[in-house]
Amino acid sequence: MTKQETPCLAHHIDHTAIAVSNIEDSLSMYVGLFGVVPGPIEEVPDQAVRATMIQIGTTQIELIEPTDPDGAIARFIERRGETFHHICFQVDDLKTSLETFADQGVRLIDTVPRKGLAGMIAFLHPSSTRGVLIELVDRSTV
Amino acid sequence: MTKQETPCLAHHIDHTAIAVSNIEDSLSMYVGLFGVVPGPIEEVPDQAVRATMIQIGTTQIELIEPTDPDGAIARFIERRGETFHHICFQVDDLKTSLETFADQGVRLIDTVPRKGLAGMIAFLHPSSTRGVLIELVDRSTV
Repeated sequence: MTKQETPCLAHHIDHTAIAVSNIEDSLSMYVGLFGVVPGPIEEVPDQAVRATMIQIGTTQIELIEPTDPDGAIARFIERRGETFHHICFQVDDLKTSLETFADQGVRLIDTVPRKGLAGMIAFLHPSSTRGVLIELVDRSTV
Repeated sequence: MTKQETPCLAHHIDHTAIAVSNIEDSLSMYVGLFGVVPGPIEEVPDQAVRATMIQIGTTQIELIEPTDPDGAIARFIERRGETFHHICFQVDDLKTSLETFADQGVRLIDTVPRKGLAGMIAFLHPSSTRGVLIELVDRSTV
């Protein structure tokens, strides 16, 4: 595949997200084991989670705790336990990337970018990514 | 916590690993969607997997495919599907880090470093890391 054919270059892993039952307990574990520096914990009401980013080198771990016991993340933890939830790639020009993906028949959870913690984001549907939940973020849109 | 008390500083996310049924198919998906450059696929007989690293910016995705239908990764995929398997942090002086963890009562899968694809590695036991499988690698030992 030549670069011209590339619909969307994921040029950086922005974060790997882990669903947790209690964000303070998990954060405390990463601080205790690895001496990471905790950041702020933020409410993300439209996703029914509290979230925090742990900077490790040039990339991050996101911890997400459900705030709604009937929400998607609470159900995920019930089904799978506290474990990896998604991976997020940084891309440029998210809007065009999503249009290209849609033209190629890639199933999208978000057909247009929406506001996330760190810029405009969109999720691809795991049915098009072999079961792996992939988020894209365009940090130039912060 | 002061830096002196930090048992082990995870200074970089080396990779996030995804268990897959067919490494060529998954690699092809990441090439097709994101234009990543595929690297070599290597056999890791002692873990009963084939593995490849996809470089994305300064970090990587590792794809691991079981070669033994009764092995740990095959069982993992049967139970959970093709999904995230572990995260790997780069550390310095892995041997001392493991000794410190053991002294603190952290349960370890590997009490001494063993040879991995990219240096000496060790896994912490998920029962000590809130269900998340964490690998450590000391790349200075490649």
